Order: sequence, then structure tokens, then C-alpha cells
Amino acid sequence: MSGPWPEGTRCGVAFSVDFDGPTPYVWAHRGEDRRVLGELEQRRFGPRRGVWRVLEMLERLDLKASFYVPGMMAISHPDAVEAMLSAGHEVGLHGHEHEPVQDLEGEAVTEVMDRSLAALEAAGATGPFGYRSPSWEMTDEAWQALKAVPVTYDSSLMGSDLPYLVDGLLEVPVDWAVDDAVFYRYVPGSNRPPVAPQALTDAWALEIEAAKRYETLLVITIHPWISGRPARALALEKLLERFLGDPDIWWATVGEVAGRFTDTPSLLEVPKLHTGHDTP
Amino acid sequence: MSGPWPEGTRCGVAFSVDFDGPTPYVWAHRGEDRRVLGELEQRRFGPRRGVWRVLEMLERLDLKASFYVPGMMAISHPDAVEAMLSAGHEVGLHGHEHEPVQDLEGEAVTEVMDRSLAALEAAGATGPFGYRSPSWEMTDEAWQALKAVPVTYDSSLMGSDLPYLVDGLLEVPVDWAVDDAVFYRYVPGSNRPPVAPQALTDAWALEIEAAKRYETLLVITIHPWISGRPARALALEKLLERFLGDPDIWWATVGEVAGRFTDTPSLLEVPKLHTGHDTP
Amino acid sequence: MSGPWPEGTRCGVAFSVDFDGPTPYVWAHRGEDRRVLGELEQRRFGPRRGVWRVLEMLERLDLKASFYVPGMMAISHPDAVEAMLSAGHEVGLHGHEHEPVQDLEGEAVTEVMDRSLAALEAAGATGPFGYRSPSWEMTDEAWQALKAVPVTYDSSLMGSDLPYLVDGLLEVPVDWAVDDAVFYRYVPGSNRPPVAPQALTDAWALEIEAAKRYETLLVITIHPWISGRPARALALEKLLERFLGDPDIWWATVGEVAGRFTDTPSLLEVPKLHTGHDTP
Amino acid sequence: MSGPWPEGTRCGVAFSVDFDGPTPYVWAHRGEDRRVLGELEQRRFGPRRGVWRVLEMLERLDLKASFYVPGMMAISHPDAVEAMLSAGHEVGLHGHEHEPVQDLEGEAVTEVMDRSLAALEAAGATGPFGYRSPSWEMTDEAWQALKAVPVTYDSSLMGSDLPYLVDGLLEVPVDWAVDDAVFYRYVPGSNRPPVAPQALTDAWALEIEAAKRYETLLVITIHPWISGRPARALALEKLLERFLGDPDIWWATVGEVAGRFTDTPSLLEVPKLHTGHDTP
Repeated sequence: MSGPWPEGTRCGVAFSVDFDGPTPYVWAHRGEDRRVLGELEQRRFGPRRGVWRVLEMLERLDLKASFYVPGMMAISHPDAVEAMLSAGHEVGLHGHEHEPVQDLEGEAVTEVMDRSLAALEAAGATGPFGYRSPSWEMTDEAWQALKAVPVTYDSSLMGSDLPYLVDGLLEVPVDWAVDDAVFYRYVPGSNRPPVAPQALTDAWALEIEAAKRYETLLVITIHPWISGRPARALALEKLLERFLGDPDIWWATVGEVAGRFTDTPSLLEVPKLHTGHDTP
Repeated sequence: MSGPWPEGTRCGVAFSVDFDGPTPYVWAHRGEDRRVLGELEQRRFGPRRGVWRVLEMLERLDLKASFYVPGMMAISHPDAVEAMLSAGHEVGLHGHEHEPVQDLEGEAVTEVMDRSLAALEAAGATGPFGYRSPSWEMTDEAWQALKAVPVTYDSSLMGSDLPYLVDGLLEVPVDWAVDDAVFYRYVPGSNRPPVAPQALTDAWALEIEAAKRYETLLVITIHPWISGRPARALALEKLLERFLGDPDIWWATVGEVAGRFTDTPSLLEVPKLHTGHDTP
Repeated sequence: MSGPWPEGTRCGVAFSVDFDGPTPYVWAHRGEDRRVLGELEQRRFGPRRGVWRVLEMLERLDLKASFYVPGMMAISHPDAVEAMLSAGHEVGLHGHEHEPVQDLEGEAVTEVMDRSLAALEAAGATGPFGYRSPSWEMTDEAWQALKAVPVTYDSSLMGSDLPYLVDGLLEVPVDWAVDDAVFYRYVPGSNRPPVAPQALTDAWALEIEAAKRYETLLVITIHPWISGRPARALALEKLLERFLGDPDIWWATVGEVAGRFTDTPSLLEVPKLHTGHDTP
Repeated sequence: MSGPWPEGTRCGVAFSVDFDGPTPYVWAHRGEDRRVLGELEQRRFGPRRGVWRVLEMLERLDLKASFYVPGMMAISHPDAVEAMLSAGHEVGLHGHEHEPVQDLEGEAVTEVMDRSLAALEAAGATGPFGYRSPSWEMTDEAWQALKAVPVTYDSSLMGSDLPYLVDGLLEVPVDWAVDDAVFYRYVPGSNRPPVAPQALTDAWALEIEAAKRYETLLVITIHPWISGRPARALALEKLLERFLGDPDIWWATVGEVAGRFTDTPSLLEVPKLHTGHDTP
């Protein structure tokens, strides 16, 4: 049998970009008087350098990506959002100040949704939007808020390796194993060094091979302040170049993946056994 | 001299599967009002996708495995237990809600044992059963409870690289170095990235080579919500394919290993020196 | 277009050395009665063995480096400072007792600056000096103190991969990915083993290749008590040998990099798109 | 110039074994009523299996090692000590119950020393002994106690890569980078997986090459409950086989290294510059 992918392809691969910049730091330290600049400047690398390098790389590779942009980033960096839109990339919701949804309750949940949506629209993006949760967490309350907007899909959970329904809303799942921050982010005092870029992209190459093997979906995620740095960008570009011409892969934005499964709901039915093809 | 393995083989290798799914999360958060969905959905990958991919792989490889199933998983996923049994795999005890034994005292110890046993039987499994402790911990109290059931063996401790007796009960030892969770599980905020699948299976290949070299036992353990993901499944399948035809290896379920040493207790006698063969 | 580097080169690479020795330990444990010698002796390896091995290596390679020296180290090890200066290396400010700037407030900020400056001058170094913050942190208060000295540049933040201005002062940025301590330092109880030297210098080789590819700046940092150990020194020497003759690289001290951009401020203007050259 | 090593050799390499077994766990949990067996059984692998595999390997390789044995281990496992002695290995002091010296004060410091010394002698070892501190820590008080015994050397600190004097007592230094526990030990909940054996012995091979290059000392340390496991033993044996015939290396016990520098104190004088030979 063949999987749920377009005729002639064997898997779906989407390249997504969480354009957080300084917002997670600013949120985590809200209400504090004194600024400590180390992490802040490190995160400013994102809008200052990283996002432009990523956009340029995508242009060179002729690849469309999905950018998830906190409202505050759209307000403070409209030029970046404009560049995303004019290049034909998807722009989606990602909170307003990158507030983890488990930190919010009651009206704050919908307020954040409304403010972030307004900020994206003010920057020129037009909905309906897809959604990715800051910190890739979710609460029941936030889930209801997503359905109320409504968003076209969520892309924050990890319960499958194919698009699937959670309480009636389409989930286009992510995976820690293909999130650059998990491997590269260095937190002072954490005693955990960044992984070498070559080692990470070798692992991600296997992720792509495995998506082909088992006819699954792979949603890669990077952050401009992390993977926009030179060595990581170089390794990433080599990885993408290697697989972009592969006829077995359907390269699509997260929104395009969501659209395919929304348009043809029968594709969501997965047989329990004999997933993937029979001849390894 | 030759080791305690069947004529013509040099070591024993067992492939075991801890089918936890969401139970460890549910247990750890028992009594809490609010659900945070990130880890929960990640764990639901196990029964939703991972276990079927693992079962299919085992069928393709014609390999019998030992599945340790918490009672609650047998109740909520009887189709998975049925598939294990009908394919000829071993099904063993693994707590009821994946309660670490050091969290239990008094009657709770035996209650958990009774409930988990009843749940496995209700799902069609027939005892006597082997046992693997959730979290691979053990207390004196839990040990006495195991002997009272009685179980045919325990497979939770690490005191040898051959089956051995602990207070009269047979231990078929495990090892952190061949537990996938140790290498792959990502805990947000932990600052520890998952190991690349190729790197892990390279290390496990050496584990198998070393078992042959020193004529020891190797009990590999995976979790469907972790190693059932595509890249890890692909690397694992390649590893198993490489060694399944090796005539030096006795591939057996944990229960079969236990049976061999229970039937012939003299095999448990290990000389202190000159373990392993003399010609490297 | 060509980047901001000297005619015929494509990037800038600086090799810097934070000569901390025991000062961070002494500062962290100030006011304690009892000494625990393990980490202290480990850090004493720096002035006892490491710094001499590094100096010798630099002499053999004919490479000029930038040494950042806490005032207390200049006082206790004047012979090391003398050797740095007589070999033509840059010597810069690095606090007095390696006090993280976020631990200081009010007059303490400027006192530390004054004392460390006096100690470097007493050891024979002549200003104006460049500055690197202990722990690579910064506060607004410390930034004002730097501008008041004034220092010729700061080299402690990570907001770009090219020199840039922060509130009117030139920043020559560093990066955790090219700081040896992040990868090699072992803290007992941290459960994080040191990275293998070959693995680190392989990653750093990619960092240099990427600087060439994107026409950026790379400021490598080592610590004598860490990278002065034999295996790390050997791997480092091989890395430097490999790239020292590369005509695409402008090897310079951090002070020389700063001087170039201070002399020609127009080099600080970076186009948002099309950074780096067009033909990969 | 040539280093402080025997004519025709370029470095010293010692292989040492800390035979802790369960003692660190028992000490850390002293006074507790309830036993949790996981780590305890894991550590019992040392005297049950690991130490015999290590002894057998050393016999096969014809290599003499230095075993540091807590008094309690000598009392509970006299057969292991007897095997060490009869094979010609060095046996040295390592605390009584593996008490970290920073946990002890006043009379307890000397009491532990006396008890551990008596236990080694009761097991057939004859002094004077060398000493290695449990946990590789040291206090001023413990240092005075060492000098009072007196011990022939200490091998617990990291302040040089050659033997050196600390307050009149000879230190034969160790290094975290060549301690197996740092790389292999898995602590549940730590989120740090063990390093692959091949990766560790590749790094250690560079350590040996670097000792040859810089004419330094390398003291490797393993623990039987950790490196006595099959895959690690196999990788270790391959490493030792590779370098045992190397004419540039003086393989010696830690005691023999100490003896050489005690007999010829002028060897302790190290020139600041031009350590190591001139032609890489």
C-alpha cells in the first residue's frame, strides 16, 4: 500500500522556523528591574543576523518554509515579516510574548491569541493562520481557544508521525529530535555543550531517510538565533541541498500539509499494522 | 571452557519492550486537576503508532520479544496485547499504573501486583509471568511480594551479566547501557539532547560483540513511544538484521533465558576467573 | 560583494585566551573558612603548566593571541604576563578576581575596573585596553563603566557574527560554540562528561569553514587550565596548523579586529540580505 | 631535551583501578532504614563480576596495575585483594567506607586512615602504601593526616601533568578526562546517557598520544563495576593492546612512578618553557 502522500512521493517533509528572538527571555524576566545582557544579546542575533541568513538560504534553495512569529516580534521587526511574506513563506501564530500556554489561565489565554493575531495582521499577514505553541506545550483551555479562533491547524504536539486529529482540530506533529534548540542551545551553568552541527545534520538525514522508509511526516524546526549562526547554517544548507531533489519527498509548508489532510479527511485513517511499505 | 549457553552458541541476547505509554506520566501527576498535554501526547505515540511499528518489525524479522505491560495499558489497549500474544511474544508484569516500587509500602505493594496480574489475564495472557519493575528499582518488600505471587523471574536489576539468584529468585539482569530511554528521552528543561540513532546502535553492536566475547547475557530494552519513532526504528531494525543470523548468538525471550537457568541450576555457577573463552 | 575583511581575505579569526586560573573558585568561595582542594588544584594547572604550553604552541605557530588576565592573576603570576607581552601578544582586562559583573553593584563596578587596570599596568602592560567580561555577562551599569574607562572594545557578548556597536561601544562578539570551557569543563556531580578533543576541533573546523563561507568573524576562546592539558593542546595545535596558512583567513588579535572597525566605521554597516558571497 | 622518563621512553602511563563496589552508596545512605536495591546491585557487579574480568584482562596483557581498595571492600572481599597481590599488582589506600574527605573532620580523619590501613594489612597487603582519595577531593586536614601516616604518595589531585610536590608530599596526578566514571556512570534522573565505549577509548588513545608528544604522565582510572561490564572491557582491552608494545611509553604502576620521582627529586624540576620535545 502507499501512504497518504501525493502520487509518486513517499513522505512529507516540512521546514519550519520559530522566530522567537528575545521574547522568551523578556517574558521569563517580566517585572524585573535589572537587565542582564548576555542571553538577551545572544537572542538578538536572531532578528539582527540569523533570520536574514535563513531567508537568504531558503531563497537560494527555492524552498518555502513556515515561520511562526510571536506578536511582539512582528511589531518590533516588521521588515522581517515583510521579507517572509514577499518570498512566499507561510507565517503563523506563536503567542504574543512567547508565553508558554501553561503559564496562562482564564481570559489571558484568549487575550494572547487575539493580540498575536492582530499583530500578524498589522504586519501584513492574512489569516486564517496555523498555530504553534511557544514551548510546544498545550492545555485543555488553550486547545479550546485555538478551536474558537479558529486556527487551521496546530503544530505543537508529538502524538503521531502523521497528521492526526486531537478533539476535532488537526495536529501536524513536531518532534524534539528535529528541533535545533534541543541540540544547540547552551544555557550557562547547565553543563551541556552544544552538539556539533555535522553530528546533528547526520542525525536529521536519518530522520528524513526514515520518513521515506515508513511513509511518515517530518516537521523540522529551527530558530534563527540558534541555527542562523554560520556553522549551523552551513551544515543545514548542505543537508537541505542533499534532499531537496529527492523525488520520494514531498517538500511542503506545514500549512500545505494541513491543507492536504483537511481537504481529504480519509487520509487521516491509518491502519494499525502494515504502516509503511512492505519492501524495505 | 564454554559458557552457559546452548551448544554451538556463545551468548544469549534477549529483546524486551517496556510498553509504558502514558502510565508513568499519569502516575507522577495523579491527583492533579490540570493536564499539560505535551508529554502526555508524546507518550501516546507508543500505543498509537510505536507499538505497531515494533510489532511489524518483529514480524518481518521473525524475532520473538518480551513485552512488559502495565495493567492499565492492558486494560486500555487490549488490541495491542492481543497482537503480542497472537504473534507469540512473551507478555510479562510491569506494575499496574507503572508505580515505582519505592513509592509503595505495605498492602499497596501486593495490591498493585494483584491488579496488574488480573489485568494481564483479562487481556488474554496466561501466567505464570515474569516480572520487570517500573523504573528498574526494587525494595526488599517488593522482592518478597514477587516471591509470593510467585513470578518465574525478575528482570529489573544489574548485578551481573549472567542470570543469577537474588534471595532465591532468578534475576535476568538488565543494563542502563542497553535501555533506549537513557539515550533518547528528551525532558524539556533538562538540557540533554537525544543521542543520534546511528550512534546508539553502533554502541549496541559493540554490546553484542562483547556478549559474544565474554559469553554473557545481553537484555536489550526499548519503549514503543521512544524507539517506535521512525529514525530510531530504522536504526534498530538495521542492528537486529545484522546480528539475527549470527550463529554465535542464542536469541531468546527473557522468559526462555529464565527457563534455561531454572531447568538447569548448575548453569548458574560461575567461575571467578577465566570467564569467557581464552582465545580472543 | 566582499565582506568587511582585508583585501584578499574572506573572514576574520581571532584566538583568545582567558587566563583565569583559580580566581573564579576563589571568588565563588570568598569568606569561607575551609578549603577543598580538588577544583583549586585543577585550576592551578593553568598558571603551573597550561599557560606555558599555550605560549609555546603560539610561538611554534607564530600566531599572536589576545590574553584576558584578571588583575589577581597579573599580581600572582607576573612572569606569565611578561612572557605574553614579550612575545607580542595582546593583554586585556578581565576583572580583578574574575567577579561576574552581575554580582557587582554601585561603586564595586568601577573599583574592580580600576584595580584590574592598575594590576595589568603594574605587570608591564600598557593601555588603552580591550575588555572581556568574566563569565561573558554584562549589565547596563558595567557597560557604562566600560565606556568611562574607556576601553577600546568589549568582547563578551554574542549579538552578531561581525563586530557591532552596542550603545556606542564596539563589541567584538564571542560565541559559546567556540569556548573550550563549555565542552571540556567537568564539574563533579554534574553528570556531564568532557567532549573528546577530536570531536571539538572537528566542530571548530566547521566554524572556521563557515566564517569563510559567510564572511564573518570568529573569536575562539580557550582557558589554559582546560585546553593547556596535553590531549586538548595536541588537538588544538593540529586545528590551528591546518588553517594558519589559509589565504582566505585574516588571523588577527581581537584588538586588531577592533582597530580595523574603529578606524573605518563604514565597515560596521551590514546589508540585511545577501550577506556572504553568492557562489557557495 | 628529554623529559623525566626512563631512557628511551617519552612518557609515563599508569593504569589504576578504584575498587569501590557498593561502599559509596552505603556511605551516602548510612543511617537509612530502607534499602533501594537498584544502585546497590549495580555496584555489586564490581566484586561479583567486574573485578575478575579486569584481573583476567591484566593477566592476559601482562600489565601491572594499581588497585585502590576501601577498607570495607578488603574486609568483605579478601579473595579479590588476594588475587591482586598474588598477580603482583599494587594495592593502595582508598578510605574505609569510601568517605569523601570533605565529609570528615577532626579525629574522624585519622580514624578512617587507621582503619583502612589495618584492613588492607589484614587482607595481606604490606605498606608503606600509596593513597587515593575517595571522590578525588582533598582538605588541608586530610593532607596533614596523609603526611602523618606517612603514605608514599597521593594520587587524587589534578594540578599538573607530571608528578609534583604539594606541601612536601608527592602528588601523582589524576585527570577527570581519563576516569571512566565521568563518562560511563548513569544516574537515574540525571538525563545523561553513558558515552559509547568506542568513543571513550578513541579519546583515551589521543590522551596517550599527547602524553608522548608533551612527555607527560597519564594516570588512567577505571572502576570494576563500571568498566568491568563486557562492552567497556572489550573496548578497553583493545586500547591497551594497541599501546602496550609502544617503545615510547613507560608503563608503570602509580607506585613505581612515585618511586622514580622520590628517588631522583631533580626530576621534579620542570622548565617553564620548552616542555616537551621540539620536533612534533
